[in-house]
Amino acid sequence: MVQYQVLDRTFSALSDPTRREILNRLAQRPASITELAEPFGMSLTGLKKHVQILEEARLVTTEKIGRTRQCRLGPEHLEGARDWIEVFRRHWEGRLDGLEAFFEQEKGNPR
Amino acid sequence: MVQYQVLDRTFSALSDPTRREILNRLAQRPASITELAEPFGMSLTGLKKHVQILEEARLVTTEKIGRTRQCRLGPEHLEGARDWIEVFRRHWEGRLDGLEAFFEQEKGNPR
Repeated sequence: MVQYQVLDRTFSALSDPTRREILNRLAQRPASITELAEPFGMSLTGLKKHVQILEEARLVTTEKIGRTRQCRLGPEHLEGARDWIEVFRRHWEGRLDGLEAFFEQEKGNPR
Repeated sequence: MVQYQVLDRTFSALSDPTRREILNRLAQRPASITELAEPFGMSLTGLKKHVQILEEARLVTTEKIGRTRQCRLGPEHLEGARDWIEVFRRHWEGRLDGLEAFFEQEKGNPR
């Protein structure tokens, strides 16, 4: 159940283009809320809400330094999300491979 | 922008444990709405809503066969979501590798 909630938050955090872009920018280097808001032409309040959702998903951590809030990537680096997708794809592709092998065998042994 | 919307829908569809479980079950074999609803102890109406969200994300397709609605995996197999995560991780890990190489070099050349 705990793992479920982590994945819920991770995928939900990734479902918005602004939040995905914030992650891409922070993968380059840490940045303040003001620096992050600038290229989006977004209000600081609007951007803070996105950062908060990323924080709840542990994808971002923030720290108050002087008068600015510095953001950097958090402890969650999408391993969980990647692993879920990979397991799903392996099941699905495994099933396709099984079907392909079946048809190949059928071709080799026409009735 | 189009790719953005596809990713928004994919990640949003994956942000719910019931929907992830539906995908896992359909990766095994197609199933009717009634068959899918059973293990969740969920109303057909509740389950249909989840299936509809998966359909909008093209992760599931449905077809009316006689009196039942048959569900199977759709044309979208999470390649987009997987690729986005992989590119993000490569950026992030590339940056970490760069730092590691820098520190290794520093260790080899103490001042």
